[in-house]
Amino acid sequence: MNFEKYIRDINDFPKKGIVFKDITPLLGDAKAFEACADHLSSLVHTPIDKVVAIESRGFFFGGIIAQKLNAGFVPVRKKGKLPYDVLEVTYELEYGKDVLQIHKDAIQKGEKVVIHDDILATGGTAKAVCELVESLGGEIIQCNFIAILEFLKGREKIEYPIKSLLSY
Amino acid sequence: MNFEKYIRDINDFPKKGIVFKDITPLLGDAKAFEACADHLSSLVHTPIDKVVAIESRGFFFGGIIAQKLNAGFVPVRKKGKLPYDVLEVTYELEYGKDVLQIHKDAIQKGEKVVIHDDILATGGTAKAVCELVESLGGEIIQCNFIAILEFLKGREKIEYPIKSLLSY
Repeated sequence: MNFEKYIRDINDFPKKGIVFKDITPLLGDAKAFEACADHLSSLVHTPIDKVVAIESRGFFFGGIIAQKLNAGFVPVRKKGKLPYDVLEVTYELEYGKDVLQIHKDAIQKGEKVVIHDDILATGGTAKAVCELVESLGGEIIQCNFIAILEFLKGREKIEYPIKSLLSY
Repeated sequence: MNFEKYIRDINDFPKKGIVFKDITPLLGDAKAFEACADHLSSLVHTPIDKVVAIESRGFFFGGIIAQKLNAGFVPVRKKGKLPYDVLEVTYELEYGKDVLQIHKDAIQKGEKVVIHDDILATGGTAKAVCELVESLGGEIIQCNFIAILEFLKGREKIEYPIKSLLSY
């Protein structure tokens, strides 16, 4: 299936000069949505225990991938959103910093983990999530994306296998 | 399956006096997560076109329910998060107001829609989302939740069928 045709470019979002990849047409088409979920799951070739997905767009496919792989689902969220004991990581954005949190009991030591988000851009967010999973003793099998924006060189920040359906 | 045992009470979250229903243990257990998704889907008895899920916890199961029902998936998000042309609704919170947005092209006139969120509390958010779907011409078949907090009387605000796995 040609997934590109379900992803539209939005110029100057969220700010001037950025071309945003809008995946909502892909979500809204039942057949394309299911085919995309099947393809994302098929990128994982070994049994895993948990899919860790990144708020919020990582949640669209994260749960589906987890179920297709018979794994549990773990949300990584913005600061203050998770109610139980959390581990957090602060990471650099283009301007300023941001914080992501994970529940301390979300991953057991030695569990095999796939990290999922919609798009790999500069890699800062994905790297921060890798650090959270490592801190809990999880074994990262793969970082899994719908698309990679290769020109932003996010690959260089991630020391784990990276799989993606699309590259721009 | 006894889903209650996978939902834990967190006292005084997000603020003093509130007992928060934390569903992350349910998400993290592969078998319970899948059983819950199956049950949520089985609450819908007619063919539908779209599942509309509410940011962020509605996204955990929203995509899975959509796929199980062969429907497209539509995210309703906080202000400023959706990149394309949006319709928005302002609604009252206990203190202050909040805004939710939906893409204007997310639902076609006459499409059959299930609205999903994790918990029905006071019903303000669900009612606001019903208004967005109505404005786009969608036909709301059902509002679908993991749990209802009956003592908050959210049912009284919603004029559509409400289905839920659990009641508190």
